[in-house]
Amino acid sequence: MSSHPIDFLLLGNNFGTPEMREIWSEQNRLTQQINVEVALALAEGELGVIPQQAALSIAELADASQLNIKDIAASGAQMKHSLMPVLTALQQQCGDSGEYIHYGATTQDIIDTATVLQLAQTLKVIVRDSTAVANELKALAREHQYTLMAGRTHGMQALPTTFGFKVAVWLDEFIRHLDRLAAITPRLLTGNISGAISTYAALGEAGPEVERRTLALLNLNAPNIGWQAARDRFSEYASVAVLISGTLGKIGNELYNLMRTEINEVEEPFSSGKIGSTTMPHKRNPAALEGLASLTQPLLHSASLIYQSMHVEHERDAMSWRAEWIALPEISSYLSAQLQNAQAILSGLTVNKARMLANLQMQDGLLLSEKVMFEVGKKLGKQTAHHLVYECAMQAFEKRLAFKTVLLAHPALAACMTEQDLDHWLDPAHYIGCAAQKVDDVIRFAVQSGHLTSPEESGL
Amino acid sequence: MSSHPIDFLLLGNNFGTPEMREIWSEQNRLTQQINVEVALALAEGELGVIPQQAALSIAELADASQLNIKDIAASGAQMKHSLMPVLTALQQQCGDSGEYIHYGATTQDIIDTATVLQLAQTLKVIVRDSTAVANELKALAREHQYTLMAGRTHGMQALPTTFGFKVAVWLDEFIRHLDRLAAITPRLLTGNISGAISTYAALGEAGPEVERRTLALLNLNAPNIGWQAARDRFSEYASVAVLISGTLGKIGNELYNLMRTEINEVEEPFSSGKIGSTTMPHKRNPAALEGLASLTQPLLHSASLIYQSMHVEHERDAMSWRAEWIALPEISSYLSAQLQNAQAILSGLTVNKARMLANLQMQDGLLLSEKVMFEVGKKLGKQTAHHLVYECAMQAFEKRLAFKTVLLAHPALAACMTEQDLDHWLDPAHYIGCAAQKVDDVIRFAVQSGHLTSPEESGL
Amino acid sequence: MSSHPIDFLLLGNNFGTPEMREIWSEQNRLTQQINVEVALALAEGELGVIPQQAALSIAELADASQLNIKDIAASGAQMKHSLMPVLTALQQQCGDSGEYIHYGATTQDIIDTATVLQLAQTLKVIVRDSTAVANELKALAREHQYTLMAGRTHGMQALPTTFGFKVAVWLDEFIRHLDRLAAITPRLLTGNISGAISTYAALGEAGPEVERRTLALLNLNAPNIGWQAARDRFSEYASVAVLISGTLGKIGNELYNLMRTEINEVEEPFSSGKIGSTTMPHKRNPAALEGLASLTQPLLHSASLIYQSMHVEHERDAMSWRAEWIALPEISSYLSAQLQNAQAILSGLTVNKARMLANLQMQDGLLLSEKVMFEVGKKLGKQTAHHLVYECAMQAFEKRLAFKTVLLAHPALAACMTEQDLDHWLDPAHYIGCAAQKVDDVIRFAVQSGHLTSPEESGL
Amino acid sequence: MSSHPIDFLLLGNNFGTPEMREIWSEQNRLTQQINVEVALALAEGELGVIPQQAALSIAELADASQLNIKDIAASGAQMKHSLMPVLTALQQQCGDSGEYIHYGATTQDIIDTATVLQLAQTLKVIVRDSTAVANELKALAREHQYTLMAGRTHGMQALPTTFGFKVAVWLDEFIRHLDRLAAITPRLLTGNISGAISTYAALGEAGPEVERRTLALLNLNAPNIGWQAARDRFSEYASVAVLISGTLGKIGNELYNLMRTEINEVEEPFSSGKIGSTTMPHKRNPAALEGLASLTQPLLHSASLIYQSMHVEHERDAMSWRAEWIALPEISSYLSAQLQNAQAILSGLTVNKARMLANLQMQDGLLLSEKVMFEVGKKLGKQTAHHLVYECAMQAFEKRLAFKTVLLAHPALAACMTEQDLDHWLDPAHYIGCAAQKVDDVIRFAVQSGHLTSPEESGL
Repeated sequence: MSSHPIDFLLLGNNFGTPEMREIWSEQNRLTQQINVEVALALAEGELGVIPQQAALSIAELADASQLNIKDIAASGAQMKHSLMPVLTALQQQCGDSGEYIHYGATTQDIIDTATVLQLAQTLKVIVRDSTAVANELKALAREHQYTLMAGRTHGMQALPTTFGFKVAVWLDEFIRHLDRLAAITPRLLTGNISGAISTYAALGEAGPEVERRTLALLNLNAPNIGWQAARDRFSEYASVAVLISGTLGKIGNELYNLMRTEINEVEEPFSSGKIGSTTMPHKRNPAALEGLASLTQPLLHSASLIYQSMHVEHERDAMSWRAEWIALPEISSYLSAQLQNAQAILSGLTVNKARMLANLQMQDGLLLSEKVMFEVGKKLGKQTAHHLVYECAMQAFEKRLAFKTVLLAHPALAACMTEQDLDHWLDPAHYIGCAAQKVDDVIRFAVQSGHLTSPEESGL
Repeated sequence: MSSHPIDFLLLGNNFGTPEMREIWSEQNRLTQQINVEVALALAEGELGVIPQQAALSIAELADASQLNIKDIAASGAQMKHSLMPVLTALQQQCGDSGEYIHYGATTQDIIDTATVLQLAQTLKVIVRDSTAVANELKALAREHQYTLMAGRTHGMQALPTTFGFKVAVWLDEFIRHLDRLAAITPRLLTGNISGAISTYAALGEAGPEVERRTLALLNLNAPNIGWQAARDRFSEYASVAVLISGTLGKIGNELYNLMRTEINEVEEPFSSGKIGSTTMPHKRNPAALEGLASLTQPLLHSASLIYQSMHVEHERDAMSWRAEWIALPEISSYLSAQLQNAQAILSGLTVNKARMLANLQMQDGLLLSEKVMFEVGKKLGKQTAHHLVYECAMQAFEKRLAFKTVLLAHPALAACMTEQDLDHWLDPAHYIGCAAQKVDDVIRFAVQSGHLTSPEESGL
Repeated sequence: MSSHPIDFLLLGNNFGTPEMREIWSEQNRLTQQINVEVALALAEGELGVIPQQAALSIAELADASQLNIKDIAASGAQMKHSLMPVLTALQQQCGDSGEYIHYGATTQDIIDTATVLQLAQTLKVIVRDSTAVANELKALAREHQYTLMAGRTHGMQALPTTFGFKVAVWLDEFIRHLDRLAAITPRLLTGNISGAISTYAALGEAGPEVERRTLALLNLNAPNIGWQAARDRFSEYASVAVLISGTLGKIGNELYNLMRTEINEVEEPFSSGKIGSTTMPHKRNPAALEGLASLTQPLLHSASLIYQSMHVEHERDAMSWRAEWIALPEISSYLSAQLQNAQAILSGLTVNKARMLANLQMQDGLLLSEKVMFEVGKKLGKQTAHHLVYECAMQAFEKRLAFKTVLLAHPALAACMTEQDLDHWLDPAHYIGCAAQKVDDVIRFAVQSGHLTSPEESGL
Repeated sequence: MSSHPIDFLLLGNNFGTPEMREIWSEQNRLTQQINVEVALALAEGELGVIPQQAALSIAELADASQLNIKDIAASGAQMKHSLMPVLTALQQQCGDSGEYIHYGATTQDIIDTATVLQLAQTLKVIVRDSTAVANELKALAREHQYTLMAGRTHGMQALPTTFGFKVAVWLDEFIRHLDRLAAITPRLLTGNISGAISTYAALGEAGPEVERRTLALLNLNAPNIGWQAARDRFSEYASVAVLISGTLGKIGNELYNLMRTEINEVEEPFSSGKIGSTTMPHKRNPAALEGLASLTQPLLHSASLIYQSMHVEHERDAMSWRAEWIALPEISSYLSAQLQNAQAILSGLTVNKARMLANLQMQDGLLLSEKVMFEVGKKLGKQTAHHLVYECAMQAFEKRLAFKTVLLAHPALAACMTEQDLDHWLDPAHYIGCAAQKVDDVIRFAVQSGHLTSPEESGL
């Protein structure tokens, strides 16, 4: 029975996905640690550091799935050490060859490299799902390239735009995120097998080659120098997660706001049987959107926590680990849930075009004040026009008059236009600038980036 | 020419107030340090630790306003110490008596106690302005005790409430904040004059009495034991600031949302000449509300920073100070700006009652689904009623039908009511529960708390 | 198989205690929710809001331990709601009376009040263990009231002090923490049963009395007004946890530093079989101290996260909950582990007095430069003495000479003292000021505070 | 008179550099805003959007240095807008052509693009100083490639290493940081000139070309789509600053620990007249190191703050700006101070080789327990050897015996070696593994990276 909500049966999927929980499970942690020990033994067998036969035997007999975590935990409580009892249990599995496990390695070699293996699994999921979100955004941007709606700044209607334009901004961000994920991958997927304080003292000259070979077996890069005391790679991973999560949280919040009763321009996917409230039967809440929006803060705070782990003392200390052990699964879980949630929301989003149009009319023309200013500004100068149109707009707002009426009643402005001109200027459809063209630009760039194909499809 | 926006001529008042900038100015920091040195000399003179005459002479000649900060800074750069050059300059001001300044004290005694004096000035402002905000909230809650509006949960209309009820929740929070401020004051206003590592070694047995007398002259409490290595008091101050700022940010965000073009239930004070946009003349932005809402995050992060300063090594280290020197002025400035801003907004807020009523009607009765459920539940059982009313509500929403129509068409439900019953149930004014009564409760409790009178009025 | 380390079999006790995991377990969460529903039914039965018989029947039949969380989770996934399926299952348990469960309440009433019940359990543990730590600190301060050691500032030896003095500073902090815990308890242990948007609309005038009675049955206070939209209490709890954890982390770090190979003044409890390293057999690591020190950062970040939950929109939103659901168990777990860990360390700490004395001699007298300055300052003036003694100290340091030798070779200083005087001044045992007296002061104050008796002993 | 310590005369250089304060000064902010307005006018003149002559006249007459910030601030307070009064003042400077300033742009176009210009200046400094730090690290790693010292894990001596190896780890990190800086530069140095809500509505089809041309004149990239609502670039800059600052803080803390009285292996540069304490003349404090170490926490918290600004609502809101306005100068200042400070420390560091050697002998051989284990493990098996050597090490530690004595007294172990073997094994100089070789590897990689040449030298 878990006490952290990430692992709750009833709430866990709000905070992660089954797939990501599996990657960061205690069992998989153990499995990856055993994988590192086996690769180490194989490499050392190949290089003659330990008997070849012992290495093969270790590879054959080691079986993480048969280790008894409860017994190991009991033993660890006595040793006050978390890896030693694993090694003891592994040694037993391997019989005589057990003497050769963990040869020349230190605890952190195994723990760190196993963590990197978990991150390799994680990155694969993150890239896959970020690509999927980007694909959804591309489809949505294209579909609504011309869907007129009010643009808003400071929470207030500002000018007309299109829903596709809004989505294209998000798509462009996601392409940047995919660039970032690609850039950090080689740095992040770097293991470390260099002994007690990274000098390879126990293995001597063979050390670096043992490390390279071990890591090659695990599909990891070898470092220039041991990083037991240099934890920047994990913080860099967290930083990219922060940026992705920032975009996802923003999307969640944006759609949440557009779904407000009074705006009502979108609705998140509704499924039969979905309950909004235990006491108010009419409620159709933006539950999925709130879920999407709400995970950014936890992720940001976990990222801030992991930054603290860069402060390692001397060749290693155990204080920085704790922050990593806590923060890596948290960040990965929250992000996985956001990515899955976003896909579901974006692919099933109801866009209420009629209400978008209706909302554009809500202010009776004020929305087009900039257009009027620029047009009359051609005759009066723009700064001057700003002052005059500002006066009319304030008057229309305060006296609840139609903007058109007030403008036409202003002698200096009326002299610059006909009523027909004004009607044209006040039509939102005539004032979306390059919104649709920019959607094209962004989609073109996204396609050219090569990211929109999933890694599987592109053969990576 | 400053580089931090707190001190910008053009933007500074977005981040602080002139009064708070003055308290945390470099000049006032110096002034309070000199005040501590003078009080120390006077106490030591009284107790015969230094010659009485030297003490009086120091008190007479020390003059922070005449110290040349530029010269002191140049000298400090050479000494790589920030207090020593101040002492040297002070010694010069005091002539022969200068030998007796800073007698038996250490740098941190002076810096810490001077900081507490700045906090004493700060607290006075914070309490004054928190009281003023509470008074505004009380007036607003009373004025709108019966002002009907839609209550919203998850961004969606939920049930009717009153605007006064909403404000009363904030008032109740502010009374708790005033309780908290009162509780921390004696702990926070505690100085420290105990020598190099707080053992009073330089003063010997006289030490504790010198400390008590010095702090009494400064209107500060004396500690049980030196706190050079125990910085919890500053973090406690930050924590209370976090709570107050949390409420203020929430109020700012709430009113910002209620001011949205599509909701339009309130408007922040508008003054002639206020510009919303350099390009859109019609914009009336919630600039003050955004300002109010936006300072909570910076304050929260400065508070998190100061928490790090609790991690002092040994009898003292200089790493924790930096966090305090940065965070205390930041927290105090941001909070002062929020409090002043909130007063101005609350006292000049336009409440658009007509629009509140109109918004209540927006969903054509759905808002009262709970009421209908409870009424029919009397006959059908509440859980059963929830299921039936839920179905009707979903149908009304999806087919854009009036809720009333759908309910009356449902045989099982129609059997529980007349159309007249239903009309009564669907009237929002009949379903605000104890909202108005709770406003009374909160105001009564607030008045009884004794906080609503300003410190001046109550003679404190 | 858990994915968050709090729930790991092998590592969990590094991040929490079995007792605290139980309090925040999914099962106990459910149990407390059912407790709230039962109390609500009983209160409503008493007050005639629902049939008395139904209430008694609900109290008899409701049984959280028999609910099937897996089934509830499956149902919740369909309803996209976390409480509704619990209610449905509870309704089934209660037979016909099931119609009367959750009568007039909203989801958040139950979730919030149940969370407060978990916090009541938590607070009891925190107060108990904080008291126990304070008692250990008191014993240690008394035992080492006169144990001489080097005081250090900026990581460098500064002046002599006693180990008891150092511990007394921590004790004084813990007494403040116990004051703070006492102060927040009544505010924190406040429930909330006020309906959909806290107006008691469903219960009408009976609402407030139903709330009072329900909460009285649960040993909780009733609020002045509903706090669904006012989350300051949880943040206040977090803030106090931050302060306690700050002290504990500082203690852990301090003892870790004192245990360094080169300082070696203390050793954390060592038990036979404890392993320091999988590759370096000689290592006796400060594993418990690192554990103690390392949990402050995670706790601080969880506290910062919960602060974000104060930003509730309108009458309620679901975004703030997530932060609370995550942060409350985290904060409580980390703090519980730190408190238990601190007790074990403090009660079993080895204090190496001989090494403390040896370290005091390490700088060959420089440590007493302040003493020399004050003595010669009686003749030369203190500021002047500072300059002269500074020169001698720098010379002794750079030329690796004995401080005594250099001082006696300086004509102006030598004229102020005999060699015998100097020998006396340079003896650390003569220069601990009021260190021992302050230990008495702090212990006296701690005893008078009434906190050192455990709640059980004092009959609370 | 400033109130934020970044701008204090006496303390400012602890928190920033004169150069970086200048970049983020209010005057330079204004200057860059005017630069953007001028570039916009010139681009619009070229493209015929405004009269060419007006553009040239604006370029000639606009003069940021002549604007009166005090007057602008007074006007801004009335308009409640921070750019409009700047435009008004600029318009006045430009005479008749003033009507054509800011044509088709919105406030945020100017503010954002000007901020990017400040970031371009900042990045140049950061890259220059990061390169300089890397160069110092390279020199230090080379100089001390073979300087023997104790490696430490968990604060306890672990195995021998070299000081150059420790420094090489930092150098490798800095090369990664320089990679990261290079990677973000093109993304970060992207301006934005797209009008009210980024649709170029005011400029119509000419919009994108006006933007491209304006940004080209400013040496900035043009975006795929406006980023008023996509603030990830600033957070990405903060993230890289976090990583660099993390390394610098770690270096500061490491050297601070190595400078402790009891370890005494390094000393930060000392200059004549440097004062450690106002009361303890002998103190030579690690003031510069504490300064270096202490700025990481403030920077981390400012980075966390800026992350919050990614949460923009709709097409723009003013809440996110505040976080950026605060955090960008803070991050840039703290980092600039750390980089300058690190250069001074590294170039003037005293390395006490004799003490390093002496410390290696402190544990009388225990330090080499791993070596002994591996040697006897060749006969006994490694895991078995761990157990036996562990027993001897614990015995030596507890009974204060020489490790050698205990080992030779152990029959099973004594059987595996001669005393001569053991003497050889226990010599630290024989057990540094590949430490020196790794220094070569890292330096080679660093040189090949191309970063170690300063941008100026390499002609960039």
